[in-house]
Order: sequence, then C-alpha cells, then structure tokens
Amino acid sequence: MSAGACRYELRAQDGDARVGVLHTTRASVPTPAFMPVGTQASVKALTPEEIAATGSRLILANTYHLMLRPGAELIAELGGVQRFMSWPHALLTDSGGFQVFSLSKLREIDDDGVTFRSHLDGSPQRLTPERAMRVQALLGSDIAMVLDECPPGGAPRAEVEAAVKRSTAWAERCLVAPRAEGQACFGIVQGGVLPELRRAHLETLAALDFDGLALGGFSVGEPSERMYELLADLGPRMPGERPRYLMGVGKPVDLLRAVGAGIDLFDCVLPTRNARNGQALSWGGRVNIKQARHRRDESPLDARCGCPVCQGYSRAYLHHLYRAGEILAARLLSQHNLSFYAALMAAAREAIEAGRYADFARQAEAEMAGGDEVGGVTA
Amino acid sequence: MSAGACRYELRAQDGDARVGVLHTTRASVPTPAFMPVGTQASVKALTPEEIAATGSRLILANTYHLMLRPGAELIAELGGVQRFMSWPHALLTDSGGFQVFSLSKLREIDDDGVTFRSHLDGSPQRLTPERAMRVQALLGSDIAMVLDECPPGGAPRAEVEAAVKRSTAWAERCLVAPRAEGQACFGIVQGGVLPELRRAHLETLAALDFDGLALGGFSVGEPSERMYELLADLGPRMPGERPRYLMGVGKPVDLLRAVGAGIDLFDCVLPTRNARNGQALSWGGRVNIKQARHRRDESPLDARCGCPVCQGYSRAYLHHLYRAGEILAARLLSQHNLSFYAALMAAAREAIEAGRYADFARQAEAEMAGGDEVGGVTA
Repeated sequence: MSAGACRYELRAQDGDARVGVLHTTRASVPTPAFMPVGTQASVKALTPEEIAATGSRLILANTYHLMLRPGAELIAELGGVQRFMSWPHALLTDSGGFQVFSLSKLREIDDDGVTFRSHLDGSPQRLTPERAMRVQALLGSDIAMVLDECPPGGAPRAEVEAAVKRSTAWAERCLVAPRAEGQACFGIVQGGVLPELRRAHLETLAALDFDGLALGGFSVGEPSERMYELLADLGPRMPGERPRYLMGVGKPVDLLRAVGAGIDLFDCVLPTRNARNGQALSWGGRVNIKQARHRRDESPLDARCGCPVCQGYSRAYLHHLYRAGEILAARLLSQHNLSFYAALMAAAREAIEAGRYADFARQAEAEMAGGDEVGGVTA
Repeated sequence: MSAGACRYELRAQDGDARVGVLHTTRASVPTPAFMPVGTQASVKALTPEEIAATGSRLILANTYHLMLRPGAELIAELGGVQRFMSWPHALLTDSGGFQVFSLSKLREIDDDGVTFRSHLDGSPQRLTPERAMRVQALLGSDIAMVLDECPPGGAPRAEVEAAVKRSTAWAERCLVAPRAEGQACFGIVQGGVLPELRRAHLETLAALDFDGLALGGFSVGEPSERMYELLADLGPRMPGERPRYLMGVGKPVDLLRAVGAGIDLFDCVLPTRNARNGQALSWGGRVNIKQARHRRDESPLDARCGCPVCQGYSRAYLHHLYRAGEILAARLLSQHNLSFYAALMAAAREAIEAGRYADFARQAEAEMAGGDEVGGVTA
C-alpha cells in the first residue's frame, strides 16, 4: 500500500460481517459506514455541522461535477474541496467516470480515455485515467477512485468483458499517476451480473497495490436478489486487510444485506434525493410525508429516532411544510434520513460486535417492510 | 389596554428614537426589533433554532396563507401556530387583509368584509373583521392585527379617504371580537401619503383601546424620501406608552430612518427573499453573491459580522453554491441576512442608550451606500 494513505483496522467479525476503523489522513471512520453524497461540494440542503452531528466522518463528492463547476484548479487554489466546503473530516472523490456515462452527451470512448460534452454548457471535455487522478489530486480528497468503464445494466457479455479489460488497464494507469499527499486510491471491480467475470476482475485488482477495493456497476437495473447473491459471493473474497466499498447502493435493506456479506462502505443519493421528494426512511419503513394520513399526526417521523427532527417536529408540521413547498421540508427530511442511515450503520456495528448480526438484520428488515405505500416516490 | 395582553416598557430615549421592551405572553422583546417573516409557519429555509440564535424573539406569520393551508382550525387543534412550528417565543399574525388585496383574485369589498378567491385553488373565501379575529384567535398568536383596507399606492384621495373610513369601522369591530387568552390587538393607521389623513386616522385609532399601533400602507410604491418625511411626522405623534409598528418595511436604511422617528417594530420579506435571489445585506452594503468578482474570494460576506455563516464560509463557496443551484445557498444567505438585521437593531438600541443614535445612523447609512451593484436583484 502507498505510504501515508489510508489504513483499515479490523475490530470484530460475525460471520462475513465485520466491524473496523478506516483511518484516512483526516479522520478515523468506524465501519460499516454510509457516506452522504455531496455531489457539488454540498450534501444537499445540509451544513457540514449537521452531517457531522449524525456521526458521519466520511462523505463523497463528485469529480465530474466539480471539474466542470467551479473547476478543480480553482478548488486547489482555495485549499482543496474540504477547506472549500468547510468539512473538516474525511472525503472520498469518485473518478467522474460514472457521471460521464450517465449524465453527459455525445461521449466517445477509446482505449486512452473518454471524450464527452459537459451537461452544463456542452463544452468538449476529456477524461483519461491520468486526468481523473490529476483532478482528484487537485481536489485533495482523502480517497481517490480509479477511472473505470461502467457498462449499462443488461449489456451483453462481450461488452461487459471489454469494459472489464479496459477498466483493468485504466486501473493500472491510475495506480502509478501522481496523487495528493496522503491520498489513498481504491480500485473498482466491474463484471456486471456475471459471477465468473466479477471474480476474475476482483482477483486481478486484488493483486495490485490499491488501498481499498470497490464494487462498481451495481444498482443499475438488476433485480435486488441478483445483487444480493453476487454480494454474498464476492464480499468474502475481497481482501480482508483492506476496506471494501459498494458504490451507489442503496436502500436500507440493501445495506443490511451488503454488511452481512462483509462490505464496509456505502454511498447513495437515495436518502437525500428521496427526502426532497417527501420520503423519510425509518426503522418502521418508509414514511411518505405528503400523504393525507399525516395531516394531523402529532407523532414524530420515527419514535425510535433520536435525531433533532424527530425530537423537534411533528409529522403534521412536516406534511404542511412539504405541501406548502417550503425549503425547510427538504432540510428536515434530509437531516432525518441521513441520521437514520448513520444510526442504521451504528446499530449494525453494535450487532456485529455482539455476535448477533444475522438476527439484527433479519428483524430490522422485517420491521422496515411496513411503512407507507411508495406512491410515486423512488423506492 | 386588555388584561393579560402585551405591555410596552420604555427604557431610553434619544431624540425621537427609543429603546424599550415589549412584553407579550410568551417573550420579552427588546425594541427596536425586526420580525422575521414566517409566511406559512416557516421562516423560509431556516429552523426556529437558527432564528432564535440571531437574537430574534418575535416573528410574524401570515393569516391569509395559514387560513388557506393548512387551515386555522387544524392549527388550533394542534395547539396553535407556535406549537405547530416549534417556535417557543413570541409571534404576531397579520389580519390577512394585505394578502387578500395583493395575492387573491376576484376580490369584492363591501362594508361588511371582503370576498375573494384563494390563490391556491380558486375556492371562494370571505374575510370580515370578526372572521379575521376568529382566525387569529385559532392561530393563537401573541399579537393579532385588525383587518384593514389597504388601497394601492397612488390611489386617488377619495379612495384613500374611503379606505380610512372603512378601516376605522373594521378596527372598532375587531376590538370587541373575542381573542385567544392573553392575545394583544394592534390597530393599523392608513391614509396613504396624505399627512393630514394619516394624522387624523392616527388620532382616531389612538383613542381606542389597542395594545399597540401600526402604520400600514407604506412601501407600496411611494418614493423613499416621501415615506421618511411621513414617518418623521407621524412617529412622534404615536402614543408613547404603546408599541409602534411599521408594517412591511424594509431596507436597512429604511429601518434606520424609522427608528430615528420612534418606530419600535418592523417586518419585511426582503432579507429572506433577497437571500434566495443571491443578495446578502451587510454593514458594507449589498453583496450580490452571483457576481464573478466573488468567485475566488476567500473573505466572508461581512468581516464585521459574527454570524455562523460569516464565521464558517467564504464568498467563493457561497458564490459556487448559488451558481450550482444548491439549497444551502438560500439557507446560508437567509441566515446571514436575518443575523445582520438583528445585529443592526441591536446596534441601534445600543446607540440610543448611549445617546448617539443620529451619529450612528448617519455613519451606518454612509457605509452601507457602498457594496455591489444591484444587477437585477430587488433593491
């Protein structure tokens, strides 16, 4: 592993599930941990203090968005993304690749990199493994991710194989590119829903000097059960002395299953995006605050939740704020959802340490199966 | 004055300017004071804790909006607007009249009241003096305002005279209507920009048993200097033993002038609305955060400001948040602006107590004349 980069300390195991601490340049992060997503150097609607108050010590920012606006060079000039956004703890940047494939127009991929047009102004842009690492070095994150090729869900086998091959070549180039001082680098395993491809790619990357390994290309349309099977197969095969990260996942139940398979880190826009659409996540399942049943309900979103929102506000008030289009609705629901995700991970760590993770996960899943109908909100 | 309603305690005078404390059922409010506007039972983008942290102890909510959504009866059932929104301090409700005249469609006014259609769903609604007081009793505010008729800026004399006459009759009906326990009631002086009409209406209302008096119908298009002249004439004529409230005003300089004329209370959407449009108010004048000059500026919005926003974030970051459309921009600029308004009022109180208000106001006004160009933002 690179000198000065992150270090994973294993603390407890329970079946394949594990508790540890991820030490980065700026923070020690108890794992399993969920990373709130601060796409544009802001976890939407919330302040850094509020994020830290949930217990989070590691967030994610998107290289694609920041390189386009305000620009990585400007952020470097202003002392890096953490100083820029007043977040004093740890931060991971993705490589930008996923957004190039999902957001930008007219992308053209070759073995050297990918050319695309900015979704903001249509300007031509190019991302290569070296550029992705250069941008992340300028951003100054604690953890950088390699540039990879993420084929769409349902891509034919030949396309997935080609993407794996290219991703390996790019990962090797990222590994030798210059980094910011103390910056760690994680590799990303692709291979779609094909177990043997996934296993082979994992073996290839595990042999390289990455500080951690991630599973990419999940939650792209495959059935949940398919993902769970693959996680159960792949998780325990990932190197145990390094952190394991499942990218872009997911729902609370997805996290419970993945923790059971030995995954340490997660990120997803779901808790903040769904909050802005009026959906709270809780120990009792979903709460769709726009529903009329909450109109005169003086109880909190979740009676078992200790967050400031559940301590201070009724469902009736949150229902009113959401219906009235008040910004405060997005704030409070986002704050609750991220508090809940942090509490879910804390409870998982406690259960693993107590050697009762399987029971805990089974019971939590059963209780979360209740809750409001989805009613048009992203599940 | 009504038993159990509010009480004004005069503490210091300096010329016509004065410092006092307004005691309501729920709070003691040092005056002069600016009331943040919580139109729909939410001061836009901020939490009650953040409002209280600026020093504010009295906010305003709009009867018109709350009677339409979620409904005054529902709020009464849930314990009143303060309990509903988790604001433990004092709250004033307007009568709804101003919004009926400015927001609703197809209004028809007669001597008994006004019929209009909701701007939300077009449903027919009626507001009479008795209904306005009934709704405010249900909302349970500390201070209720009488229903008045506010003619548009530039209305002919005959129309203004008729509105004054009707407003007097309505004020008398409001005064005898039932109220919530301990709820105070303020009268509203109309009369447009006609000094003799204003004086006569003030005398009429001063003779009635109101707990305080307000000046309505300002900042409706008349030149600022015209308003200042009228305030200088009317302020000192308002009863000294009762609080004096200038409704819907205004810019920082307007507040300085009005305080000089002996006004105690203000409300205005300007600091929060302009914040959402990217404009900060400060001791150095306006800061239009969207301007390119702030792009790499590491200084705070206002180096003299002690608010959490000026302590924690750079102009460069705020510029980025605003350009990127992040909700956090609206939050932080609103928090700063309301902190600044509260600090301006605190500095005014200090200057009055020290007997140097005129110098203070002159200097503050001169310094605020700097700052960014307006550039399309509401001045």
